[in-house]
Amino acid sequence: MAMLNEAIDFIKLYYSETERSEEELVRRLAEVEHDIQENGFYEHTIDELKFGAQVGWRNSNKCIGRLFWQTLQVLDRRELTSEQDIFQGLLEHIDFATNGGRIRPTITIFSQRNVRIWNHQLIRYAGYETADGIVGDPDSVEFTKKCEQLGWQGQGGRFDVLPLVIQVQEREPQLFDIPAEYILEVPIRHPEFEWFKDLGLKWYAVPMISNMKLEVGGITYAAAPFNGWYMGTEIGARNLADDYRYNMLPTIAEKMGLNTVSNSSLWKDRALVELNAAVLYSYKEDEVSIVDHHTAAQQFKRFESNEQNAGRDVTGNWTWLIPPLSPATTHIFHKPYDNERKTPNYLYQKAPY
Amino acid sequence: MAMLNEAIDFIKLYYSETERSEEELVRRLAEVEHDIQENGFYEHTIDELKFGAQVGWRNSNKCIGRLFWQTLQVLDRRELTSEQDIFQGLLEHIDFATNGGRIRPTITIFSQRNVRIWNHQLIRYAGYETADGIVGDPDSVEFTKKCEQLGWQGQGGRFDVLPLVIQVQEREPQLFDIPAEYILEVPIRHPEFEWFKDLGLKWYAVPMISNMKLEVGGITYAAAPFNGWYMGTEIGARNLADDYRYNMLPTIAEKMGLNTVSNSSLWKDRALVELNAAVLYSYKEDEVSIVDHHTAAQQFKRFESNEQNAGRDVTGNWTWLIPPLSPATTHIFHKPYDNERKTPNYLYQKAPY
Ligand code: HEM
Ligand code: HEM
Repeated sequence: MAMLNEAIDFIKLYYSETERSEEELVRRLAEVEHDIQENGFYEHTIDELKFGAQVGWRNSNKCIGRLFWQTLQVLDRRELTSEQDIFQGLLEHIDFATNGGRIRPTITIFSQRNVRIWNHQLIRYAGYETADGIVGDPDSVEFTKKCEQLGWQGQGGRFDVLPLVIQVQEREPQLFDIPAEYILEVPIRHPEFEWFKDLGLKWYAVPMISNMKLEVGGITYAAAPFNGWYMGTEIGARNLADDYRYNMLPTIAEKMGLNTVSNSSLWKDRALVELNAAVLYSYKEDEVSIVDHHTAAQQFKRFESNEQNAGRDVTGNWTWLIPPLSPATTHIFHKPYDNERKTPNYLYQKAPY
Repeated sequence: MAMLNEAIDFIKLYYSETERSEEELVRRLAEVEHDIQENGFYEHTIDELKFGAQVGWRNSNKCIGRLFWQTLQVLDRRELTSEQDIFQGLLEHIDFATNGGRIRPTITIFSQRNVRIWNHQLIRYAGYETADGIVGDPDSVEFTKKCEQLGWQGQGGRFDVLPLVIQVQEREPQLFDIPAEYILEVPIRHPEFEWFKDLGLKWYAVPMISNMKLEVGGITYAAAPFNGWYMGTEIGARNLADDYRYNMLPTIAEKMGLNTVSNSSLWKDRALVELNAAVLYSYKEDEVSIVDHHTAAQQFKRFESNEQNAGRDVTGNWTWLIPPLSPATTHIFHKPYDNERKTPNYLYQKAPY
């Protein structure tokens, strides 16, 4: 029986890493086994849940931020069953995690049954198809349409925050607007280029992934939004830069007066550096937590040596770990990583729509 | 019998892609089979050899330059048996490929038996361990020591071209200095920063890989140096930039007056862009062939669609294909590649020392 085996492995891992007694372990294993036989599932204790969520982060092969895995704050909201209460739970997550800019890595865990959050991230900008092309975030076009079908009406702007879409059981999903005071954003300006702020760019403070599932000891938490703080390149070298996202490099290069006809002027590379510098500068000036890719790589190096000292192999996905800006200036670029998947972990799941 | 099977596959591939008659194919297969049974090997015709070397390039999963695979010039030097003659063959390669700066992608193929070139590239800078650290190219330290053991005496400079080391059969390898007039180099200067030229940086014009083997139809050519022209990032984002190579970023950043204490000033990224701009500028001004990474990616895209049109799958190694500067600005970053290994191909082989 798959669940039982995974439960046993997890409980053993938990007891061995937390140095509990053999006696307690045996009792807990018996309890878990009994619950699974009886009900088809079991409930994690709050400590097991916390451990599972933290180790899930430690095992996230694509994540460069794992040095801080033990600091993950775990909010247990498994008791909530109504859309309204879950919405309140999400607002609490946003508030607690945002923390006025001093971002706290946080996960909120909802019931292992029947709760789904449809959003990719709790805060994310809408994308609208118009006659003149896409307005807003092209990555959100499909989900924005879904929200509109469910009755939402966007403003048609470049940075409209999407509503939270919460589904319980097989009921119609319900939409909730996030009150403005919950949404911390950072207008992007540049330390030297005065014109930069007139591009009207901004980004939200906290990336809160809400469409992945957390798997712990055979139990799936389909609704378990988690967040860290941003690494600057996620915004500056991807969200605002990719030509299928906000595609700002041509505009920035033009404003910089670069020769955008010749590839070898390196105008894309130059515009990219300035955009990333602006992102880091703006977040720092606003005292919103962010990390640059060089510092993040150094932190990841410390994570690697911590893990080695703890006698654990570091698994990793090289293609995600290397930053999209100057990757060869980090140590990550120059070594291979084993992409074996460990558990507990955060995994993709089928979209509910 | 492994060689026979590979020979048959290759001959069939050659005949099908060159649209020769079934009759000719059958005759050639019989011939090859006979030779292998009789002698344990066979000789490629010059056309087979050319096809094999070109398709080997087409199949090089790590190479972004494959659009031009059909233009590879193949110099057949299989008849040469003495070290002195092979040295002359290498000089001819250098001369033909360099072509005064209008670089020609070229391969010289020596005998399938008993010839080894010890050098990593035909032109490469020495690296010396000194009391004050490494002088020259740290990547060459081991090979430089080997040359010294064989009697070579370097000048102890940062850019001393290593001698050619040629081994025939089990004889002592022989060393040959490359006459200066064969070595085209480009002093690196910057279009705007006057001080840049005073860093005293230069690089050679033509990267000629000489330590890989070419495998064609079951036959191994252990000595088959090949070259294209440089993609700028190989020099600007790796050879001169990596901290375990020429490690120039701190010096350049300092000259630029950047804040090298703070990672988030992006001083490494800024210095890297200027170094790469300088490399492209210098090669272009000297009319030495070079390609920037954006143009190379566009050319690779054309290669991909050519291959698709020809009904062939494109294999590729993502981790090598993405450029080390602004990788996410190229289409390559945003799609997966299948790293299956096809044959003919260029492969690593054990160093002879
Ligand atoms: C504390 C600051 C954190 C930083 C700086 C950070 C950094 C990153 C970065 C740069 C990526 C790649 C994102 C991309 O390229 O799209 C990533 C991916 C990931 N991180 Fe982290 N992370 C942090 C916290 C967390 C936390 C708290 C968790 C879970 C508890 C986590 C789990 C993951 C996972 C599962 C992925 C892969 C996401 C996917 O597949 O789309 N990270 N992280
Ligand atoms: C014509 C211009 C060419 C360009 C711009 C080009 C570009 C590149 C680049 C950027 C790399 C990665 C190098 C690195 O990161 O160290 C590479 C690798 C490679 N290329 Fe090309 N290439 C060219 C011609 C050729 C030719 C003529 C051949 C063979 C006939 C070839 C075969 C290979 C192979 C085998 C590798 C992998 C080398 C290794 O494993 O170390 N390329 N190429």
